[in-house]
Amino acid sequence: MVSTEEIFTIMNIIGLIAFAITGSMKAIEDKLDLLGITTLGIMTALGGGITRDILVNNIPNALLSISDMSFALIGVWFALVLYKIFGIDIKHRYIIQIPDAIGLAAFTTTGAVIAYNAHVSFFGIIILATITGVGGGLISDLLLRRVPSVLKEDFYASCSIIGAIVFYIAILSGVSIGLSGLICSIVVLMIRILAIIYKWKLPTFS
Amino acid sequence: MVSTEEIFTIMNIIGLIAFAITGSMKAIEDKLDLLGITTLGIMTALGGGITRDILVNNIPNALLSISDMSFALIGVWFALVLYKIFGIDIKHRYIIQIPDAIGLAAFTTTGAVIAYNAHVSFFGIIILATITGVGGGLISDLLLRRVPSVLKEDFYASCSIIGAIVFYIAILSGVSIGLSGLICSIVVLMIRILAIIYKWKLPTFS
Amino acid sequence: MVSTEEIFTIMNIIGLIAFAITGSMKAIEDKLDLLGITTLGIMTALGGGITRDILVNNIPNALLSISDMSFALIGVWFALVLYKIFGIDIKHRYIIQIPDAIGLAAFTTTGAVIAYNAHVSFFGIIILATITGVGGGLISDLLLRRVPSVLKEDFYASCSIIGAIVFYIAILSGVSIGLSGLICSIVVLMIRILAIIYKWKLPTFS
Repeated sequence: MVSTEEIFTIMNIIGLIAFAITGSMKAIEDKLDLLGITTLGIMTALGGGITRDILVNNIPNALLSISDMSFALIGVWFALVLYKIFGIDIKHRYIIQIPDAIGLAAFTTTGAVIAYNAHVSFFGIIILATITGVGGGLISDLLLRRVPSVLKEDFYASCSIIGAIVFYIAILSGVSIGLSGLICSIVVLMIRILAIIYKWKLPTFS
Repeated sequence: MVSTEEIFTIMNIIGLIAFAITGSMKAIEDKLDLLGITTLGIMTALGGGITRDILVNNIPNALLSISDMSFALIGVWFALVLYKIFGIDIKHRYIIQIPDAIGLAAFTTTGAVIAYNAHVSFFGIIILATITGVGGGLISDLLLRRVPSVLKEDFYASCSIIGAIVFYIAILSGVSIGLSGLICSIVVLMIRILAIIYKWKLPTFS
Repeated sequence: MVSTEEIFTIMNIIGLIAFAITGSMKAIEDKLDLLGITTLGIMTALGGGITRDILVNNIPNALLSISDMSFALIGVWFALVLYKIFGIDIKHRYIIQIPDAIGLAAFTTTGAVIAYNAHVSFFGIIILATITGVGGGLISDLLLRRVPSVLKEDFYASCSIIGAIVFYIAILSGVSIGLSGLICSIVVLMIRILAIIYKWKLPTFS
């Protein structure tokens, strides 16, 4: 049987690759050179986790292990292949929306678990889970001088926030960390998919 | 009688709320959704302190305690009320210039004291005091893709720098940390209010 | 005779001053006030090293010692003198391209050595070496709301990456850290100068 840990590992890999594809395609759209495309892909895949690790005072895992970086580079390479061979670019973003949603769920959960282990407050868990999920996209938008899309366009960061709250409630209710994490992942993934299908938006105050 | 510590606590609360109002109003002006407004308000209130804590290698207090976040959220809520009910927006910024100045004074002082305790150099104290005071506003400007107003428009960061220098001189002269902090706060607050009244500017080199 | 350490110290000083000049001149071009110019100069000179120190969980050396900051301030002062007295601005950038290349080589090497001592992975060494070399310029571009030039224009970050790879190979081959660092510096400097002379570019995917 597949263990919870194996599920997370697989979700995390899907997320790294999907996030790297999105970041690389944004860079291709902005006509960056090959190094710029690679940097954007890597930052989008790893930026959230690096920021979280800095906040809880760890040396970022992405600097210590080579696996995260390797999957990010595979994502960059996928993006180049998709673009050069199949003519797929950022406008066909829906193609990677499901892998991206899996990544959002995996990263949010990792963030929540690491935050819990760092003994931060309720708000700390929400912030770290959300940063892990959306931080990479935000950094790549800043590098490309765009207003971060998580601040503007989508029911996206909200999925992380709701997932982190559910994680916290599960932990408080005596559910084990492993199971709380699994529930968090499922909640984020389902809400995100519903948000894509029904085009949910948050209210603005214009 | 009111102790020095109580004065700081109150000034800090005023600052958190005032900074969150400014950040939220910038986000309202840029037509962000409710989550974007909340994020901007929180980042403006907490961003300076978080950056300072990262630099001196602490887990940010904003992640460990729930009080900072709570006051930031109160500020966001104030901003929404001011905007929706009273029609007050960022153009009426003068309404919160005095609370904002109190916040600048409180944050600068907290930054200087934490820097002193981290045994950094003279320049380290100035940098950490200034980042604590102006970092949140700078981060929110970056997120909204504006050239940070502290770099461009105002006699604002200068108040923090002067306050930190005065703090350092006071400490060197044998004044206690508590009293040095109080002097720092008063200096920042007075210079900032004078800068608002007399519309001080720094020279440019055009 | 001059020791390896002395060579690095001198290269590092040249780099701090050259980077501060570039940052200040960008700020002058964007008509920032005196504080903005100083901040940009300092951030360009120190930003890469500060980011690297945060990533490996050290309190930034720039906050602990006063020498880095002093050389950065000398660079800012140079920029003002060059601009006001000799009418030299950012368009005459070629004047500081050689000192800037020396700085890139020195900073890349410092980053690689500190990364090696922090026991990070192969990718970690490349990332930290490159961030130390180009991070300051990237931060100053972000503050000025420009798409970072390292992502877009030049064969610049590539020099750091190649230098870090050569450093890693040298270490693996049993070469001492000191000599590996020296080789890294020479490689970065030579490639960068060749890139300037022959106007090398990386391919884009438009």
